[in-house]
Amino acid sequence: MQTTRAPQVLISEVGPRDGLQSVARTMATADKLHWITALHAAGLREIEVGSFVPARLLPQMADVAEVVRHALTLPGLTVMALVPNRRGAEAALQAGVHKLTMPVSASAAHSLANVRKTREEMVEEVKAIASLRCELAPQVRLEAAISTAFGCTLQGEVPEDDVVWLAAQCIAAGADESGLSDTVGYANPAQVRRLFRRLHAEIGEKAGAAHMHNTRGLGLANCLAAYEEGVRTFDASMGGLGGCPYAPGASGNVVTEDLVFMFEAMGVFTGVDLKKLMAAREPLKAGLPGEPVYGMTPEAGLPKDFVQGSLHA
Amino acid sequence: MQTTRAPQVLISEVGPRDGLQSVARTMATADKLHWITALHAAGLREIEVGSFVPARLLPQMADVAEVVRHALTLPGLTVMALVPNRRGAEAALQAGVHKLTMPVSASAAHSLANVRKTREEMVEEVKAIASLRCELAPQVRLEAAISTAFGCTLQGEVPEDDVVWLAAQCIAAGADESGLSDTVGYANPAQVRRLFRRLHAEIGEKAGAAHMHNTRGLGLANCLAAYEEGVRTFDASMGGLGGCPYAPGASGNVVTEDLVFMFEAMGVFTGVDLKKLMAAREPLKAGLPGEPVYGMTPEAGLPKDFVQGSLHA
Repeated sequence: MQTTRAPQVLISEVGPRDGLQSVARTMATADKLHWITALHAAGLREIEVGSFVPARLLPQMADVAEVVRHALTLPGLTVMALVPNRRGAEAALQAGVHKLTMPVSASAAHSLANVRKTREEMVEEVKAIASLRCELAPQVRLEAAISTAFGCTLQGEVPEDDVVWLAAQCIAAGADESGLSDTVGYANPAQVRRLFRRLHAEIGEKAGAAHMHNTRGLGLANCLAAYEEGVRTFDASMGGLGGCPYAPGASGNVVTEDLVFMFEAMGVFTGVDLKKLMAAREPLKAGLPGEPVYGMTPEAGLPKDFVQGSLHA
Repeated sequence: MQTTRAPQVLISEVGPRDGLQSVARTMATADKLHWITALHAAGLREIEVGSFVPARLLPQMADVAEVVRHALTLPGLTVMALVPNRRGAEAALQAGVHKLTMPVSASAAHSLANVRKTREEMVEEVKAIASLRCELAPQVRLEAAISTAFGCTLQGEVPEDDVVWLAAQCIAAGADESGLSDTVGYANPAQVRRLFRRLHAEIGEKAGAAHMHNTRGLGLANCLAAYEEGVRTFDASMGGLGGCPYAPGASGNVVTEDLVFMFEAMGVFTGVDLKKLMAAREPLKAGLPGEPVYGMTPEAGLPKDFVQGSLHA
């Protein structure tokens, strides 16, 4: 890395988990390792490398332990994995991840439909995972990611009180941080500001990442709103991998390349080298030939004479 | 219109000019009239209906006088036309438009390449048009739209001092307002805030519209930044018509449908009925069969139980 200034925001790359899990095909393990290596080489310092779920449910994630093993060799990288329950958490801790992320839905309807548990039962699950973590690997961080925080396709509106209450419950249950996810792409910038302001008031520095989707084109505007509200960790997916099936041509997750471009153009240092980031699309494409890989900045190219401030400070 | 609250922002639809002029094919006059009628029915109250340029240069705009004639019959609509020079302005004034918009490039290189005039010569042109307007139709408004205000594909960086100086020169030459256009999609939210702040400081309430492109995916984020800086007029193009040739799959102009959704979701009233706006895509598609018509919100649909505040206040 040629970075000469400390990053001011953390871009947390979720493509190898959120993206690959949404694609029907399974990327070969060797291709995953190449891709993750390239993401790390571009300067990404937190990567959600996979999900500890039963292979019969998500065959795309069957090799997650091997992927973690490789990712752990990359210097300075926080290796994160999604765990849906304590069984997954145990496997992830045994694999040696640095950070666990556990999705907890703020929508009562979505929680029941998705994991057949009430939100209160999910808080108990967080508590169990936090205990397990203390026992097996106390240095590991635990994130509770509040999903459907900005609305839900099943329930419609999700009361803001529910979101803030649930985040506080998760922190009380032992999570180290709690972020907000716009799982279905309903968020708008005013709502993002309002909810993160409430989250900060409620749990202070334990407020975590903004995980925005671009389903209705507002992904970057919502990240900007979150940034202005003090959020400093942003989830994003290379190439927008993890496309939303009901928005053809639209990516689900915010595109890492566009998000990094936005911040770097604003003079907000990400620690990510845009040219190397563009290059890291190649192993992704090679590993999933024919799969749509989005990104407006990669397609348009960088502006003429664009200088990336954080690399030339 | 069922609007029960006064709009808080003005969405200025540029599709019939900026969009149609960028498409190789020519939309039939009758189709243009249907489309403009549908845009008006959706609540849009300012439409750039065409460009007064020689038909041999832009055959798509050959029927502009007839289009203006029709648009003038739509109640409450501000009928705007682009004029590149005093000859075009004379024709537009004779046609009876309510507002003229004259592009003036802040990039010295772009000005010479595009209109073979220096920026100083363009200010003289604005002055001549302003005089002509006073003589022929003093009630008509004149906008000087500062193009390449955020960067230029020929010149690269465009000094902010040049942008603010040029806007002030245009106002001094008799323009009623001066807005800033991100002609090539280089703008970022920090720059947008900085430049509009300087523009407001320089020309006060004569600061005009934000005309943003989505070439690198930042269009809505830039509109949000402009809004937060006090801008209240936003150019946008239905379906992102006017696509950028070097960003395949990417729209050039900000998509009206997505922009209206963003504001309405934020509780900022546009006066535009989102459902009728979606319906207005049909005459556009019918008039240009096979032409790509973009828009994330139209593709994804409105959120479940979404209530448009301005229509149900």
